[in-house]
Amino acid sequence: MFIKNTWYVACTEAELDGLGAQPLGRTICNEKMVFFKGPDGRAVAVEDFCPHRGAPLSLGKVCEGKLVCGYHGLEMGCEGKVVHMPGQRVRGFPANKAYAVAQRYGFVWVWPGDQAQADVAKLPTFEFFDNPDWAYSGGLYHVQADYRLMIDNLMDLTHETYVHASSIGQPEIDETPCKTTLENGQVVLQRHMSGIQAPPFWQMAMSANGLDPQAKVDRWQICRFTPPSHIMIDVGVALAGHGGFHAPPEVKAYSVVVDFITPETETSHWYHWGMARQFKPQDEALTARIREGQGKIFSEDMQMLQLQQANILRWPDRPLLMLNIDSGGVQSRRIIEQLLAQEQTTGVPA
Amino acid sequence: MFIKNTWYVACTEAELDGLGAQPLGRTICNEKMVFFKGPDGRAVAVEDFCPHRGAPLSLGKVCEGKLVCGYHGLEMGCEGKVVHMPGQRVRGFPANKAYAVAQRYGFVWVWPGDQAQADVAKLPTFEFFDNPDWAYSGGLYHVQADYRLMIDNLMDLTHETYVHASSIGQPEIDETPCKTTLENGQVVLQRHMSGIQAPPFWQMAMSANGLDPQAKVDRWQICRFTPPSHIMIDVGVALAGHGGFHAPPEVKAYSVVVDFITPETETSHWYHWGMARQFKPQDEALTARIREGQGKIFSEDMQMLQLQQANILRWPDRPLLMLNIDSGGVQSRRIIEQLLAQEQTTGVPA
Amino acid sequence: MFIKNTWYVACTEAELDGLGAQPLGRTICNEKMVFFKGPDGRAVAVEDFCPHRGAPLSLGKVCEGKLVCGYHGLEMGCEGKVVHMPGQRVRGFPANKAYAVAQRYGFVWVWPGDQAQADVAKLPTFEFFDNPDWAYSGGLYHVQADYRLMIDNLMDLTHETYVHASSIGQPEIDETPCKTTLENGQVVLQRHMSGIQAPPFWQMAMSANGLDPQAKVDRWQICRFTPPSHIMIDVGVALAGHGGFHAPPEVKAYSVVVDFITPETETSHWYHWGMARQFKPQDEALTARIREGQGKIFSEDMQMLQLQQANILRWPDRPLLMLNIDSGGVQSRRIIEQLLAQEQTTGVPA
Repeated sequence: MFIKNTWYVACTEAELDGLGAQPLGRTICNEKMVFFKGPDGRAVAVEDFCPHRGAPLSLGKVCEGKLVCGYHGLEMGCEGKVVHMPGQRVRGFPANKAYAVAQRYGFVWVWPGDQAQADVAKLPTFEFFDNPDWAYSGGLYHVQADYRLMIDNLMDLTHETYVHASSIGQPEIDETPCKTTLENGQVVLQRHMSGIQAPPFWQMAMSANGLDPQAKVDRWQICRFTPPSHIMIDVGVALAGHGGFHAPPEVKAYSVVVDFITPETETSHWYHWGMARQFKPQDEALTARIREGQGKIFSEDMQMLQLQQANILRWPDRPLLMLNIDSGGVQSRRIIEQLLAQEQTTGVPA
Repeated sequence: MFIKNTWYVACTEAELDGLGAQPLGRTICNEKMVFFKGPDGRAVAVEDFCPHRGAPLSLGKVCEGKLVCGYHGLEMGCEGKVVHMPGQRVRGFPANKAYAVAQRYGFVWVWPGDQAQADVAKLPTFEFFDNPDWAYSGGLYHVQADYRLMIDNLMDLTHETYVHASSIGQPEIDETPCKTTLENGQVVLQRHMSGIQAPPFWQMAMSANGLDPQAKVDRWQICRFTPPSHIMIDVGVALAGHGGFHAPPEVKAYSVVVDFITPETETSHWYHWGMARQFKPQDEALTARIREGQGKIFSEDMQMLQLQQANILRWPDRPLLMLNIDSGGVQSRRIIEQLLAQEQTTGVPA
Repeated sequence: MFIKNTWYVACTEAELDGLGAQPLGRTICNEKMVFFKGPDGRAVAVEDFCPHRGAPLSLGKVCEGKLVCGYHGLEMGCEGKVVHMPGQRVRGFPANKAYAVAQRYGFVWVWPGDQAQADVAKLPTFEFFDNPDWAYSGGLYHVQADYRLMIDNLMDLTHETYVHASSIGQPEIDETPCKTTLENGQVVLQRHMSGIQAPPFWQMAMSANGLDPQAKVDRWQICRFTPPSHIMIDVGVALAGHGGFHAPPEVKAYSVVVDFITPETETSHWYHWGMARQFKPQDEALTARIREGQGKIFSEDMQMLQLQQANILRWPDRPLLMLNIDSGGVQSRRIIEQLLAQEQTTGVPA
């Protein structure tokens, strides 16, 4: 069961563009959708099922903004209505469900629920996209695990010490208590470490930003969950004693880890990950290096999550612990539950 | 559920011969069978299950017309009776079901139902097999889709325009209405196009037959379904204005597409496809070229059918349309339904 | 359903040693276990489930005899109790089931049932292990078949004639009756062949032991099943007329085939196979050659058993025969059934 009357990231604009005249089939919240560009060049989405004989429309071709079924040429319009089929009167043909779609920040967003309730005003806003002071790059992983296991993962960074020991992990994460708060429907979990050695990834970032990588630093992690499943994590290091997160730009290396987590089925999800940074935004080689490092780190999480999922399916009745370090995930799941209950009752988005 | 008291193509004689002393295991209409050659060299079939310990008999070896189990040497005779086992008295051993088998036209045919009702007089006859005026070649595909989806496909050739755009498809197929009739228990769907340009496959055939490939042609497609699941399609082109299908041999290129569609399970089938042609029957290079082209074309269908099948399983309650272009498939399915009902009621073949 | 209050071979000590600081995850009798070495260097086993968030503990690392979860650093002790977790008081954490484990003969043995009932006095003893007069080597196969099909296989060697025709099979096996007896809770099946030609594997062994491989021999096979699923098979050849199994060492080549069969699930098992021999125990090249030959022979069984298993699943209601040659397997299964019933009723091991 998923919150459906909300915006999820479906794909990047680049993915859709890269396919040319081919549409993109993707399942989101158990809805099998096909994405294509309508006559005005804007992305649209309808059910990936040809009302004629059930072929996947995603095997078809996009022609002048209509999606032509690859089997017998039925033409599907942006609104899910059949607009043409050779030799047929299509007026009485059943329509497909169409989904509200929006484009922002280089992503295609979809509202899997009731199209009439979709509201672009509810799209999240981020200062670091479309902003020349920031650089961004990222990638996409298909993960065979409940999307909430990814939320747990990202809202509790003590796992870095174990899963990412060679890049961003360090014992001080474990040793420093975290604080979880609720702020305007966001779950915020933060941890501030003082006067420590930076781990390898951050030493690399300090060098790139002209700082001595061996200098003692203050390090921070501020995870922010917003429903349905977006997590932004302020991460960085500043030379020790300059105010940490609040230190002036010239003494720190600072980024936002961007996580758009899109459920596919109950036990799989699409994980759009990336990193936005303020230092050296024009340095494309650095951007590439960060993307590669982050991709490697997140592939370590992926393996863990998939085997954790398999293990949980094998022991379905065994309770899990909810410790203080889990409070970020626990509170995020609680918000999801509340919104789900609300949607079940009223059909209205939160 | 399948019509069982009828003949299906099980394999080619060449497949069975090619295995030497090995038998051939194949599931047909949900019956797991093993085919081998009995003492008189004729193909026979029994259940692929050793009555001793359940090993597949298809792992065994054929020795003097008996099938010797590869596990402990039980010897199975052509009638499904155990004829020998080292150190054992086999008289009381349970028998396997044996299937009526016939050989005709280079194919091994099987009657999956009641052997006592099997009648070779009910084998279909075709003028183009065993006939020096004709050449034939074909192949076998294993398709993960309900066999009726293949019948739909072959009884509605408008899909050629979309699935086979680069070989036999052309917009005129879509634009020309088809006519469906019932003739002696056959479903016949025909389409005749006049004064058009031949598509690439037929240009190749025209050249091979000494005709100008750029000349205007009349083109025809006459699909004939006979139960349980054989489809013969008269296809060809003749120089325009000479009578189309009825034009004299020297101004046309003419073939029969041969389709023997054998159910394996509810969602898979064996597709024996081929082409019989009257022009240049001795030209073996042409035969090979046609076989290669046809194999490529049918592999395009296979991908579509398998994804259509998966899509239909995902939306089990969603109705499909039955348009005029679908009437060939619809009427063929209706005949199958009638024969199935008849067989369920009376146990007697149609 | 498995006998659980008994010892099974879990793995070899070499497997566990070879992993270094990594633990070994293995499912035995449907119990998903993780094996590692405790602080005293002895192997231990607990459920492969982290009580914190359900990650497999087998993804973790062993550190000073404790198993550290690879996700968030929970430390699991040998008894299944959580002994430490960074920043947590672990006293109230739920414990994992721990399994009794023993080490003997280079194998790690596990008692999947009630740890309190485990008794090392019940470990089987074998004269050929830890004995300089004998050489031993073997391997491990993961077989997708009910472990009882492997017992049937090893307690009826008539299959050698068919499955292993090129190595140890010969028609005389089939032709020589076998005798099955019960001796102190063991099932013993024996077959003695006189004055025959040795098959290829034994010709090789005769040569290796300085005997003329073409000489006539007496050959024996004495299969001994002990519950839950250990089978030792005395096999060998002696120059004809010297007493067969009882002939003096210098006129024979003699081995024990060692089979430890450990259920994984209802339709899969771990097969630890090997061979112990008395002749030329110091000849390591011979040991390697025997291991290679035996591995090849047992891979032939594996294919047969897996397809037999699939066939039986497809015909679940079809009875199998129980012939005289099957009496070894039949009686072994009967003992398993009795012990299972006993365990179900009393919870007490036999």
